[in-house]
Amino acid sequence: MTLYESRLTAIENYLSTNEYPKEPTNLYDPIRYFMALGGKRIRPLFTVLSAELFGGTLDNSLPAAAALEMFHNFTLIHDDIMDGAPKRRNLPTVHEKWNANIAILSGDALMIHAFQELSRYEANTFKSLSSLLYKTSIEVCIGQQMDMDFESMEVVSEAQYLEMIRLKTSVLLGCACAFGGILENTSVSNIDHLYRFGEHLGIAFQIQDDILDAFGSESKVGKQIGGDILSDKKTLLFTTFQQRATAADKARHRQLSAAAPEEKINGIKQLYLDCEVLDYCKATQEKHWQKSQEHLMEIETEASKDLVKELLEFIIHRNY
Amino acid sequence: MTLYESRLTAIENYLSTNEYPKEPTNLYDPIRYFMALGGKRIRPLFTVLSAELFGGTLDNSLPAAAALEMFHNFTLIHDDIMDGAPKRRNLPTVHEKWNANIAILSGDALMIHAFQELSRYEANTFKSLSSLLYKTSIEVCIGQQMDMDFESMEVVSEAQYLEMIRLKTSVLLGCACAFGGILENTSVSNIDHLYRFGEHLGIAFQIQDDILDAFGSESKVGKQIGGDILSDKKTLLFTTFQQRATAADKARHRQLSAAAPEEKINGIKQLYLDCEVLDYCKATQEKHWQKSQEHLMEIETEASKDLVKELLEFIIHRNY
Repeated sequence: MTLYESRLTAIENYLSTNEYPKEPTNLYDPIRYFMALGGKRIRPLFTVLSAELFGGTLDNSLPAAAALEMFHNFTLIHDDIMDGAPKRRNLPTVHEKWNANIAILSGDALMIHAFQELSRYEANTFKSLSSLLYKTSIEVCIGQQMDMDFESMEVVSEAQYLEMIRLKTSVLLGCACAFGGILENTSVSNIDHLYRFGEHLGIAFQIQDDILDAFGSESKVGKQIGGDILSDKKTLLFTTFQQRATAADKARHRQLSAAAPEEKINGIKQLYLDCEVLDYCKATQEKHWQKSQEHLMEIETEASKDLVKELLEFIIHRNY
Repeated sequence: MTLYESRLTAIENYLSTNEYPKEPTNLYDPIRYFMALGGKRIRPLFTVLSAELFGGTLDNSLPAAAALEMFHNFTLIHDDIMDGAPKRRNLPTVHEKWNANIAILSGDALMIHAFQELSRYEANTFKSLSSLLYKTSIEVCIGQQMDMDFESMEVVSEAQYLEMIRLKTSVLLGCACAFGGILENTSVSNIDHLYRFGEHLGIAFQIQDDILDAFGSESKVGKQIGGDILSDKKTLLFTTFQQRATAADKARHRQLSAAAPEEKINGIKQLYLDCEVLDYCKATQEKHWQKSQEHLMEIETEASKDLVKELLEFIIHRNY
């Protein structure tokens, strides 16, 4: 068992022994079901490890870590309704297994339980954690709305896209890292570097997801390749293409958009390569990766950062 | 202007100047629209007045009062989706005016803004208020789920019904009253009496609503009479009838259930009268009203309780 895995086990254990009320079963069975679906538990891992950078113990960091995982799962339950997604981690989503009303309400309840989890801390820590989580939660909602708005927009700029993924996914990773620093009462500067580390890492991850969705290998990514292209999703690949394409490229893109699935995917991928879209996106991803590493280096601690780096290695190897 | 009306004006003013982010408009226009639809603002009024019982000022109580009104409006936005309700206060509901996804997400955001509003208080007060609001919010979700579950149940007991309305509507009124006491740091006993006062009052109000829906006058109630009967809603009238009806009464009820609307409403109302359902429900309502008054009397304060009583008079006259 590697070092971070012992933390992962503690997180899973804490999450699975969290006692939600038994009834009403239509409210709490969906929550128990969804929380048990698994996932990489990246956010709680980062909270736990960032707390350790300042001497924090698992006992103290687990409730804050769990709150973030619970909040994240609430967002997934509601996002799945909005996206009409039938599956999550290869199992039926809550609105599919039960119904949309139950998914709305159990999502609501899970969000409140997430916030409530933080009330295990004394008043000052509780307030610091809650204030950051509220701010972050609102940003996540804004990011989700931007993502939905993009669906009906013809043109999305790179700046708009990057701001959307920052809000929808990265700020929660920033919050997870900052939580560890807040729990251990470290300096404002350290908390800020922790936050920026998580934020840039989150952006790099999301760009990587965009790239893999088009150019990954099906066996490694674990899902069908080209889904984003097929659904005309506004990814960084898409916004970059819009920026770099000639009139002829755009005409070809319009033509391919109406083609049969396989032709559409392969044709547009070729267009992306011709316009050096892939290289540009990889460079943007690398830039955010570098920035996250710079912030990690800036954190002033006497503890080793090896555990954090090991976790990053693990995430990268699982993803790439 | 009566005394409570000056508080109402301050509440409306506070709510309307609350600055939500301007964008995304699809997230915040629905929130601004819904918060401006109005309503009696009962919950914030009770927070403000209960704080005044212990010398509290409007300046100090308004954020807590607003948080409750915002939370209440979040529940209405989501309940309207679940109920498929086209109108709220004679105007289109959020999911009708925009769509269900926007109603889900703007409801989520409004709930978070409600909780966030409490972070205007210093850490200890913030934690006391938040802890009670989280507990209450979870109970409201449980009550809403019970209400949805009742739809597919043939038999609902009086105890189940009373517990459902206690959770779905009354605990938030209890919380609103307790908030005033918490804000002014009064005794645990006073806070408990404030809570019970609001809780029993909320139950009495809900039973009154049930009675008026069947036996009120259309002009006073402001909506069509008999809606609950038509939709076979499990109200206290319904559970009481189930308890008191003979086999013959039940057979007649089954027969009437399939009749044309007017015949169904009038026939079942007559059945309720024959079985003394109305008297029993009025007595139950009176019992909770009396209990709320007892708790109001038990509150130890040097301030006059006249304002609270004036508000009660106002609510009763508007409703009855």
